Amino acid sequence: MDYVYGPGRNHLFVPGPVNIPEPVIRAMNRNNEDYRSPAIPALTKTLLEDVKKIFKTTSGTPFLIPTTGTGAWESALTNTLSPGDRIVSFLIGQFSLLWIDQQQRLKFDVDVIESGEWGQGANLDILATKLAADRAYTIKAICIVHNETATGVTNNLAAVRNLLDEYRHPALLLVDGVSSICALDFRMDEWGVDVALTGSQKALSLPTGMGIVCASPKALEASKMAKSLRVFFDWNDYLKFYKLGTYWPYTPSIQLLYGLRAALDLIFEEGLDNVIARHSRLGKATRLAVEAWGLKNCTQKDEWFSDTVTAVVVPPYIDSADVVRRGWKRYNLSLGLGLNKVAGKVFRIGHLGNVNELQLLGCLSGVEMILKDVGYPVKLGSGVAAAAAYLQNTTPMIPSRI
Amino acid sequence: MDYVYGPGRNHLFVPGPVNIPEPVIRAMNRNNEDYRSPAIPALTKTLLEDVKKIFKTTSGTPFLIPTTGTGAWESALTNTLSPGDRIVSFLIGQFSLLWIDQQQRLKFDVDVIESGEWGQGANLDILATKLAADRAYTIKAICIVHNETATGVTNNLAAVRNLLDEYRHPALLLVDGVSSICALDFRMDEWGVDVALTGSQKALSLPTGMGIVCASPKALEASKMAKSLRVFFDWNDYLKFYKLGTYWPYTPSIQLLYGLRAALDLIFEEGLDNVIARHSRLGKATRLAVEAWGLKNCTQKDEWFSDTVTAVVVPPYIDSADVVRRGWKRYNLSLGLGLNKVAGKVFRIGHLGNVNELQLLGCLSGVEMILKDVGYPVKLGSGVAAAAAYLQNTTPMIPSRI
Amino acid sequence: MDYVYGPGRNHLFVPGPVNIPEPVIRAMNRNNEDYRSPAIPALTKTLLEDVKKIFKTTSGTPFLIPTTGTGAWESALTNTLSPGDRIVSFLIGQFSLLWIDQQQRLKFDVDVIESGEWGQGANLDILATKLAADRAYTIKAICIVHNETATGVTNNLAAVRNLLDEYRHPALLLVDGVSSICALDFRMDEWGVDVALTGSQKALSLPTGMGIVCASPKALEASKMAKSLRVFFDWNDYLKFYKLGTYWPYTPSIQLLYGLRAALDLIFEEGLDNVIARHSRLGKATRLAVEAWGLKNCTQKDEWFSDTVTAVVVPPYIDSADVVRRGWKRYNLSLGLGLNKVAGKVFRIGHLGNVNELQLLGCLSGVEMILKDVGYPVKLGSGVAAAAAYLQNTTPMIPSRI
Amino acid sequence: MDYVYGPGRNHLFVPGPVNIPEPVIRAMNRNNEDYRSPAIPALTKTLLEDVKKIFKTTSGTPFLIPTTGTGAWESALTNTLSPGDRIVSFLIGQFSLLWIDQQQRLKFDVDVIESGEWGQGANLDILATKLAADRAYTIKAICIVHNETATGVTNNLAAVRNLLDEYRHPALLLVDGVSSICALDFRMDEWGVDVALTGSQKALSLPTGMGIVCASPKALEASKMAKSLRVFFDWNDYLKFYKLGTYWPYTPSIQLLYGLRAALDLIFEEGLDNVIARHSRLGKATRLAVEAWGLKNCTQKDEWFSDTVTAVVVPPYIDSADVVRRGWKRYNLSLGLGLNKVAGKVFRIGHLGNVNELQLLGCLSGVEMILKDVGYPVKLGSGVAAAAAYLQNTTPMIPSRI
Repeated sequence: MDYVYGPGRNHLFVPGPVNIPEPVIRAMNRNNEDYRSPAIPALTKTLLEDVKKIFKTTSGTPFLIPTTGTGAWESALTNTLSPGDRIVSFLIGQFSLLWIDQQQRLKFDVDVIESGEWGQGANLDILATKLAADRAYTIKAICIVHNETATGVTNNLAAVRNLLDEYRHPALLLVDGVSSICALDFRMDEWGVDVALTGSQKALSLPTGMGIVCASPKALEASKMAKSLRVFFDWNDYLKFYKLGTYWPYTPSIQLLYGLRAALDLIFEEGLDNVIARHSRLGKATRLAVEAWGLKNCTQKDEWFSDTVTAVVVPPYIDSADVVRRGWKRYNLSLGLGLNKVAGKVFRIGHLGNVNELQLLGCLSGVEMILKDVGYPVKLGSGVAAAAAYLQNTTPMIPSRI
Repeated sequence: MDYVYGPGRNHLFVPGPVNIPEPVIRAMNRNNEDYRSPAIPALTKTLLEDVKKIFKTTSGTPFLIPTTGTGAWESALTNTLSPGDRIVSFLIGQFSLLWIDQQQRLKFDVDVIESGEWGQGANLDILATKLAADRAYTIKAICIVHNETATGVTNNLAAVRNLLDEYRHPALLLVDGVSSICALDFRMDEWGVDVALTGSQKALSLPTGMGIVCASPKALEASKMAKSLRVFFDWNDYLKFYKLGTYWPYTPSIQLLYGLRAALDLIFEEGLDNVIARHSRLGKATRLAVEAWGLKNCTQKDEWFSDTVTAVVVPPYIDSADVVRRGWKRYNLSLGLGLNKVAGKVFRIGHLGNVNELQLLGCLSGVEMILKDVGYPVKLGSGVAAAAAYLQNTTPMIPSRI
Repeated sequence: MDYVYGPGRNHLFVPGPVNIPEPVIRAMNRNNEDYRSPAIPALTKTLLEDVKKIFKTTSGTPFLIPTTGTGAWESALTNTLSPGDRIVSFLIGQFSLLWIDQQQRLKFDVDVIESGEWGQGANLDILATKLAADRAYTIKAICIVHNETATGVTNNLAAVRNLLDEYRHPALLLVDGVSSICALDFRMDEWGVDVALTGSQKALSLPTGMGIVCASPKALEASKMAKSLRVFFDWNDYLKFYKLGTYWPYTPSIQLLYGLRAALDLIFEEGLDNVIARHSRLGKATRLAVEAWGLKNCTQKDEWFSDTVTAVVVPPYIDSADVVRRGWKRYNLSLGLGLNKVAGKVFRIGHLGNVNELQLLGCLSGVEMILKDVGYPVKLGSGVAAAAAYLQNTTPMIPSRI
Repeated sequence: MDYVYGPGRNHLFVPGPVNIPEPVIRAMNRNNEDYRSPAIPALTKTLLEDVKKIFKTTSGTPFLIPTTGTGAWESALTNTLSPGDRIVSFLIGQFSLLWIDQQQRLKFDVDVIESGEWGQGANLDILATKLAADRAYTIKAICIVHNETATGVTNNLAAVRNLLDEYRHPALLLVDGVSSICALDFRMDEWGVDVALTGSQKALSLPTGMGIVCASPKALEASKMAKSLRVFFDWNDYLKFYKLGTYWPYTPSIQLLYGLRAALDLIFEEGLDNVIARHSRLGKATRLAVEAWGLKNCTQKDEWFSDTVTAVVVPPYIDSADVVRRGWKRYNLSLGLGLNKVAGKVFRIGHLGNVNELQLLGCLSGVEMILKDVGYPVKLGSGVAAAAAYLQNTTPMIPSRI
């Protein structure tokens, strides 16, 4: 049932779904259970409490929804807004584009701030102008993708919060943290994020299937007024069962619950801040390799560099889809395609989730061989050397093994 | 991480999530994969083709949606209907009730046909009257639960189709097959079902997380006109990717795809009709046991008997929740609670999915001991004897072992 | 790769290999590891310490040998004895026979005490006579199978120790505890057992592959003098590595080590004495069923009844191999064949390891149907009723669920 | 239960136990089964047939023994030889040393040919002299390790066979293929090998626990005369059960049987000769890296280079154990220690089993960082570059993905 078997491990470096650590695979290797027995609510209770830590919130209310990131988006929007509501949204790449598309289809009045060429971050100057002009508070929400997975751009959420505060603007702050939460520095409470969301298959390193949405008290309050139609995604159904202590309005995946428990345990064992530091280390190492190869990062300013995904621009005479195809066909390496506007122009290295230095270096050496395969005059070993020089200086000892 | 360990296997006899066969657990025991590589579309293609067989359709279009049965309901409704549409829906138990609640929240004009006491099937006489009166075809859809999991009642879908045909009524026929498809006789094409749906954790014997929705050509046609707002559940997003041959508008669960492949392989190896015959055998055996215990089946007429779940009525002096609790606390047996109107009055034995005769007999002997525990004067062995007498006559040899 | 797939769970009731609990399967679901890293010795250290508890010894030295029970026998014999040594051994069934065969092939002078018809325990009167006569202490060891798996006979080890003490006889006491240790009452230190051994696939409920041998100080002392040739099985190779703290003279199975850890954790969570009580309960229940069926237990006196395996005698007009074959072919039930002298005459129900009441009752109801299939006039439900009556009175609540 | 958790995958580059491919882990993720049912003999039959292919024999008889490589050695020796028999054995490293130690303890008259400093191959000139002198055929067997795992030395078996033929010498040729079979070119029939053996945890990429021994017709003939005492390791016990078609004299590991089936399937899917070519490629790449680092290969002549393990000599001012320790503690990389005479002087890179190019390059980049850590002035990227230059030229497309 592996139609495309190749020897050895697949180097999985797409920016999601990512590698699942063995202890998590083990935890999910189980039969179903009655989710109405006392066991599952007891487990769920610990999950709801602990999952708040990865959002860095104490006041937020988390929802573990049997859905994907797309569903989590819909949950965030429909529970807090009403059709026709004016919302500001930033268009900087494929995933912000898809979210905006969803916002429009859900009948919100989307005020799109586009940043020009993909590879730029959210244009906060325009946001400032809009906020300054919005004396009547017609803007109900700011929707922003923390980390645009298509271009490897990380937006400055603290700056967004500062602007809202500066203009004393009451708009909700809705954040797509799909490729950031649990990997990048994210502070729900400190940054006044009202809804934050992620998907299980990203930095949490689980299978796809759980959308994790966290709502601030202000967002919960807004949900009481929000007129968007929702049933499957309605937070109220959850809240009702939270009060009952049974937690589940419909059947959860038993396997994902135990998997999430194991994933959180690993994250807490490593320490969330160490997890974030590891991502920072791997991101930096990847960028050093790209530089050594003489290639450009799709991300156009250092301030936007993403520590979870790097989009690498190939020269015009190369089709980046060939890079990806070749990786898979020859080296058992999975890289991310360029999407939409940057299709053919960039390939992506996802360095998020439960991954370490040597896995990344194996990936980078694979990229070097592929680049040579497709006709780019790379010096083999150059990127690996640059990355390794940085990693050899910065990688900490594994605490449990000292 | 098993908070409530008990020795030996749990006898899982809730009507979902059900026991996962070992080959399926094995197939899902895997790391993530890039879902954009050629491997996953190739796998998906076989799944979409083969899944039609369990619906007994050749003309239907299946959707494998990362959601639960509740989401599958929403997908069926919002893709085929518009707010304000008049639909006829049958209220016969907790799951039909929940679907009706969803229908109402989605702003349809729900014409509810209630069957009186729970334990009765859909009242088709009233349906006939309504269809006869509806010369203007104001009824846009008939929504019916094939098998009401709360009461163990199976409705006669062929009869519904006959009525629609008799009155040449163009209403869509939308069927919740959550606890029927792949276990009971279900014929999408023959019965002119327009949308049929199930969930992975039921007779397919997978983990929760995949809603499987199948649409007839007429339903697809209706989806072009349907004005209900939907984004995550929009069939069009799937159809667009079906055309591209990449199949997935958003990230699927790699594990569930391989799991579904393995589950279908097992079903085809056994033979779908043999699977259905096995359920019939187990259902009948369970009913014989209930009779032998001197207890009543919640289902009020033989024609409605369900071969996937049996709701057993306890005497008034017993709380059926005690039966369930005791099963779990003393015998590692998981039974289904009575829900809503029949809470405290019935407990349920789910006999669906990948389960065999001896597992059922183990469960039945457990129920006997529990009944005695809670003060019902059961003759130990009586139900098992009745069930075994039937099974010993009807169980076929295992084909691969003859 | 399942050549003989049948729906539902296999009811595995052979007396080994037995059902592996899910948490143990999970613990073994892992890649290999470097066994020379600090991790494996640290794990091994806990195992060697904890495994002593299942032997009820504090002074014994355990060896975890990559072998089967047959290899464990050879380890026990060759490390403590010299060719030509006189040893007393009891012949009561197929496994004691095989051990005697090994003893003879290893060139010991085996003084066999045969008990006549299979189904009897070790004849301790003859042992007493021999000990009384052996003023010169020519008997170097008494070899005894604690529980003869072929006939379901448990020998009285305390009585053997009493005889040795009575005659102040210095012979070593070597005990095959393959189908007893971790299931029956076994007290290495209290009963002065010098070498005790078991296999991982029996009451420990692991895969086959680990022979566990435990040596008393006296046995270790004897090993210094023992002239039997051994290399792979030589305890000295282990002892050398124990001193180094690396523990392994050759590569262990990483999976079995983690599996043993998980298995011991489950046993300690249940409580070893509760595990033994559970086996006693299941053994008694099985015997009550056999009695209700009107069949004879192969075991000829109550004092020898085994709580881990019951050998059931079929009437002369039935071939017990048919019973076993039919169980597998029709009911997905695995029973034990009659071996050697009792081939065709008995079938065996193994009720050892991680198994519970309802699993046993499922098995017993299967046996009833098979008996009917093969022409024995059993009253269906009779055995189950007798067993359930006992179990309903004696089964404790599951502690973690109260 | 992972005492020493570190993020990401462990790079397992010890020369055994090696990485288990996911499909094999999956195949072994299962409950026990009755090994006496028809299923296990049917499976075993295919294994015995197919395992011959990895030995490249059609006339050999394989034995799948529940033991380790050490046990497989004992099986080879005791079944073919008698105490006092003169055998010639080559001492070239730790594993040949251990085998010789076993031979001596088993009371053979071992004529040891030592090759001087470790890193040299078997001295065949001395063998020639001995054979020439042995007109009386007092030499009963030549024992040779095909690939000395401690030093990365591969001996020339064809040359040994040629010498035996040249002198028409009837000595048996017994070969330890533990770290060669299924990875290096090995031809049992063509080279007239009489007993060849390997262990499951080496190139077959399984857990430890199965010793695979293959006997030529001449070896089987010899076993009839061999007077060495053996019981557990006696081939006759197997042959008896082969004739019966039940195959197993004692309980096999169900999990390893299914694992072996899966492992063989993967090997045949890749093609045994492609597997061997992959090892050749990885071996060559590793040696190029070592050269680029300016370090010496422990193997002293090119003709002896091993394609499964490379022992790298460190400068005198470095303790190679520090290299290994640091790899594990900082980079989650497992390397092989130097053993015995070369302890502290070499570390070993095992590149055998189910491993691919990028995994190796990840390992090599890790070694570079470690070397820098411990004070060796390596140029980061140099070894990776040299290896990648070779691999980029020679790695074939993955056939199933073209």
